[in-house]
Amino acid sequence: MKDPALYLIPVTLGDTPTEQVIPPYNIRVASRLKYFIVENVRSARRFLKKCNPETDIDAITFCELNKHTDKSRIADYLSPLKAGESIGILSEAGCPAVADPGAAAVAIAQQEGYRVVPLAGPSSMLMAIMASGFNGQSFTFHGYLPVDADERAKKLKQLEAKAYADDQTQIFIETPYRNMKLAEEILQHCKPQTRLCIAVNISCDDESVVTRSMKAWKNRLPDMHKKPAVFLIYRG
Amino acid sequence: MKDPALYLIPVTLGDTPTEQVIPPYNIRVASRLKYFIVENVRSARRFLKKCNPETDIDAITFCELNKHTDKSRIADYLSPLKAGESIGILSEAGCPAVADPGAAAVAIAQQEGYRVVPLAGPSSMLMAIMASGFNGQSFTFHGYLPVDADERAKKLKQLEAKAYADDQTQIFIETPYRNMKLAEEILQHCKPQTRLCIAVNISCDDESVVTRSMKAWKNRLPDMHKKPAVFLIYRG
Repeated sequence: MKDPALYLIPVTLGDTPTEQVIPPYNIRVASRLKYFIVENVRSARRFLKKCNPETDIDAITFCELNKHTDKSRIADYLSPLKAGESIGILSEAGCPAVADPGAAAVAIAQQEGYRVVPLAGPSSMLMAIMASGFNGQSFTFHGYLPVDADERAKKLKQLEAKAYADDQTQIFIETPYRNMKLAEEILQHCKPQTRLCIAVNISCDDESVVTRSMKAWKNRLPDMHKKPAVFLIYRG
Repeated sequence: MKDPALYLIPVTLGDTPTEQVIPPYNIRVASRLKYFIVENVRSARRFLKKCNPETDIDAITFCELNKHTDKSRIADYLSPLKAGESIGILSEAGCPAVADPGAAAVAIAQQEGYRVVPLAGPSSMLMAIMASGFNGQSFTFHGYLPVDADERAKKLKQLEAKAYADDQTQIFIETPYRNMKLAEEILQHCKPQTRLCIAVNISCDDESVVTRSMKAWKNRLPDMHKKPAVFLIYRG
C-alpha cells in the first residue's frame, strides 16, 4: 500500500449532481476517508452524502479551515498523517487550495514531506478560461479586487493595460452580491473595444459564459446578483 | 432542446483510465457528438474509444486544429453549429483552450454568439497549483519560457522577483525532453530559499507533486525526462 496522503478533492459547484462534474474515482476516495479538513463543515457533510448516501458521516472527523481559523492549529489538523491515516481537503465549492484557505494546510504537508494528491474536478476559474476564447497560454488569476472604489478603478485600469501589454488574460472574482456593481464598474473604467467574459453559475442549469466587447455589454449585462461569477478581461 | 453548443471536453493525462479523472456526464456528451475539433486526430480517436468502445469513430468528422493549422480555416470548422449540430473540442492532454491552440476556435464561437460549454476534468496546471501549497489566490501561468539560455535566465529572475513582490505563484511548463535542463537552470538562477514545486505525470501511476526550497532540491531532482511536468515558483 502507498503512504498516507493528503487528498485534494474538488466538490460540485452549486446544486450540480456529482456525476456531472466529479470523476467516479474521487467518489471512491472520498467515501473511504475518515479525516477531512474542510472550509465549511455543513457543506462538506452535504457533499459527502451526495457522493455516497451510505457514508457514515458521524464516524468522520472534520476540522474547519477558513479565514477565521487560528493558523497555529493547522499543523495539528494533519496529525492523522503521522498515524498513517489519509486526509481529504474540501472547499465550499470547486477545487481546494485555489481561491480558498486550504493552501495553508497543503503547504505544511509539503514541508513535512507527506504525499499530496490532487484530484480532477470542477474549477469555475479554469472552466471560465477555457470557454472565454481568451489567451489560455498566459493568464493571471487575481482573486478578489480591492473593495475601495478608487483603488478598484485603478486596479481595473492596471489589469486592462496588462492584458494589452503582455497579451495576457486577466481573471478575477467578486462576492456574489456585489457582482452587478463590479460589472458596471468594469464597463465604466475599461476601453469600449476591450473584451470582457462573464461566466455565471458554471456547470449549473442556468450556466452562461459569454464574451463581448465592453461596448457590446452596455445595457445587456446578465442577471448575476448573488450568483457565483468569474470575470475575465482581454484585449479587443 | 437547448441550442447547439461548442463543448470543451477535457481528456485524460497520459494512460490514466477515464473513470479516474473524467466525470460520467462528459462521457455521455462525447459519445453523442458527430463533430470534433481536435489538436491531434489519432489521440482524439483513442480517447473517444476509451470513453465508449461502442462509438462508431468512422461516423465522426474530425477537424485538426494545432500550430500548423491555417487560421483562416477555423471559422469553417464551426459550420456544423450553423446547421444546428453541436461540436466537441479535444486537446491532446487535459483541458482544451488552456495551453493549446483550441482558444482560437472558442474565440470565433463567442464572436458569432454560439453557446460555449466548458466541462470539468483534469488540468495538470490547476492540479499542480492545488498540490503545491503555494498561493492559490494569486497566480500567473506563463506557458513556455523562452528557449534562449540568456533570455530564459532573465525570465526566471523576473518571475522569482514577481513571486516575492506580488506574493504571487509563478507557473510554467516545458517540452518534456527539456525538463531536466530547465530544472537545473531554475536551481542555478533562483535564490536558495525560494520554493520550487515540481509536478510530474499528474494523475498517472508515478505521479509526484513535491515542493522544496531550491537549496533542498539540489542533487535531488526527480527523473522527469520526457515526462509531462509543471513547474511552480513561490517565495520562501
